[in-house]
Amino acid sequence: MTLDDELRRALDEKAKPLGSLGRIEELAVQLGLIQGTLRPRVADPVVLVFAGDHGAVASGVSAYPSAVTAAMVQTYLAGRAAVNLFARQAGGRVVVVDAGVAAGLPAHPGLVAAKVGWGTQDWARGPAMTPAEAESCLRQAASIVDGLADGGCTVLALGEMGIGNTASAALLAHKVAGPALEGLVGRGAGLDDAGLARKRAVVAQGAARTPATLAPVDALAEYGGFEIAMLAGAILRAAERRVCVVVDGVIVTAAAIVAHAMRPECLAACVFAHRSAEPGHDAMLAHLGAKPLLDLGMRLGEGSGAALALPLLRAAAAVLSDMADLRDVT
Amino acid sequence: MTLDDELRRALDEKAKPLGSLGRIEELAVQLGLIQGTLRPRVADPVVLVFAGDHGAVASGVSAYPSAVTAAMVQTYLAGRAAVNLFARQAGGRVVVVDAGVAAGLPAHPGLVAAKVGWGTQDWARGPAMTPAEAESCLRQAASIVDGLADGGCTVLALGEMGIGNTASAALLAHKVAGPALEGLVGRGAGLDDAGLARKRAVVAQGAARTPATLAPVDALAEYGGFEIAMLAGAILRAAERRVCVVVDGVIVTAAAIVAHAMRPECLAACVFAHRSAEPGHDAMLAHLGAKPLLDLGMRLGEGSGAALALPLLRAAAAVLSDMADLRDVT
Repeated sequence: MTLDDELRRALDEKAKPLGSLGRIEELAVQLGLIQGTLRPRVADPVVLVFAGDHGAVASGVSAYPSAVTAAMVQTYLAGRAAVNLFARQAGGRVVVVDAGVAAGLPAHPGLVAAKVGWGTQDWARGPAMTPAEAESCLRQAASIVDGLADGGCTVLALGEMGIGNTASAALLAHKVAGPALEGLVGRGAGLDDAGLARKRAVVAQGAARTPATLAPVDALAEYGGFEIAMLAGAILRAAERRVCVVVDGVIVTAAAIVAHAMRPECLAACVFAHRSAEPGHDAMLAHLGAKPLLDLGMRLGEGSGAALALPLLRAAAAVLSDMADLRDVT
Repeated sequence: MTLDDELRRALDEKAKPLGSLGRIEELAVQLGLIQGTLRPRVADPVVLVFAGDHGAVASGVSAYPSAVTAAMVQTYLAGRAAVNLFARQAGGRVVVVDAGVAAGLPAHPGLVAAKVGWGTQDWARGPAMTPAEAESCLRQAASIVDGLADGGCTVLALGEMGIGNTASAALLAHKVAGPALEGLVGRGAGLDDAGLARKRAVVAQGAARTPATLAPVDALAEYGGFEIAMLAGAILRAAERRVCVVVDGVIVTAAAIVAHAMRPECLAACVFAHRSAEPGHDAMLAHLGAKPLLDLGMRLGEGSGAALALPLLRAAAAVLSDMADLRDVT
């Protein structure tokens, strides 16, 4: 009997009608398979927030200036952003990674300094980073994940901060996975109609620089950002370490598309937390065959949606570990 | 400026793009309005599980015997059912009410003894209970809610256990709200095709005994159960006490339909936790104009869905209470 079969049998023996916990049961099976056990645990869950800046902001792809990236990182470190509140009440902690913020950041126990550059280059005019920088992002993210996994982390919720990064996410999804660029570009943090038209034009200009399809690492180098490249590396490494990855919104999903293109089997470790209100997310999720747990009209990023899904993972693990069997009841 | 306006302004001043927390923001406004404050709290959340048996089980409306009701109540008291696990990880406690279980139950600190009868009469042949019993259910539930509210409970998640009670829920929704009976009757805890056909026949027989439309308390008396009548009473009283009610699946939603028919304003205090996989739920939710938070294919009852929604309420309250304002960031 395979572990999959054993997990399903264990669920069927619980004190409930067959299948009556719906997706919580599917999640329990997935967690068990990732961790290789009939009794998966949500131990030391970490919300890992990668931050980086984007040269393309200068060409006009965001309603906000790049300085907001560093300001929000400070807010995460102060514990006062949405992701902090949501992580805290789920019994998780937030760790921030400076992947490439275009500002100096003070040393802080909750900050991992891994700056690959002071923001990427503007992909509207040329590559966002060198291939060596993209590889460095993948390697550094793997090292960070190793540190967390060695410390006992079994669930890694991924988030990000980077003004301008929905444009990178759209370009990555388009070049690696194929959906039309048109449907992938949205208002991001809040562009008005004129801003959206400008973003579309800049993205089209950036897309025209390179072939229709790119290999995953090439796409990361062309369009960035440092934080998205690290997210892809984190997904790949977490899957290897049998750490469950909780995928947040459009940015982390774009990173999952890149990681999936590199090693398709990493998808088995990914739980998709929520359906973002950013319009491109549906096409990205469809490419991966992913069905998110929550649909709350959120589009904040940070890992806020991933953090909100942690209680569902805890519920799934608890059903296998702590719930009475039918034979205990009758 | 109204409290509603003040709540929306407070949310707009938070360190996030406008509206980017989607339904969490709507929930924050609702919680603030229920509690009459700009800083709502999820203090001492209780999952209140009403249990009762149904005479109609003898006519064949469930895949399980009535004895399962008492057995599951024992499992709740032992802390080992799904609702216990989900409540615990949301920082809530489970309180069980014996509204009318057809078995003696031992005294237990987590059990409120409020037995109105040893199961209802079979509504296929006559009224499930007397009008006086229905009124007693409403009164006793109000008294229980008063006790919890006086003790500091600000959020009340409602659940139920009662073999046979999806049939009562279908009849109540049909007679009070109007949707066709056909679409309201499902497999409940797991009837096969023959069992479903029998349930449909018994429900049709029961429905034929009374006029097409019934006043809410008359409907409770005709079709029960004791636990559903108490749920309706709990909703009405919680709304009066400005306690937020978290509505679980089809049974609690049927009780909400009854309560709404008695005093429509009680709906403002209700948060609908999840969309049940039981097919009648959509029609019930549509009647109330309710849009549930979660859609996880669950159909267990117990309050398990309501308990899973508690972290979303905590998140909403935390956004208003603890999240940084934009002016703190820039």
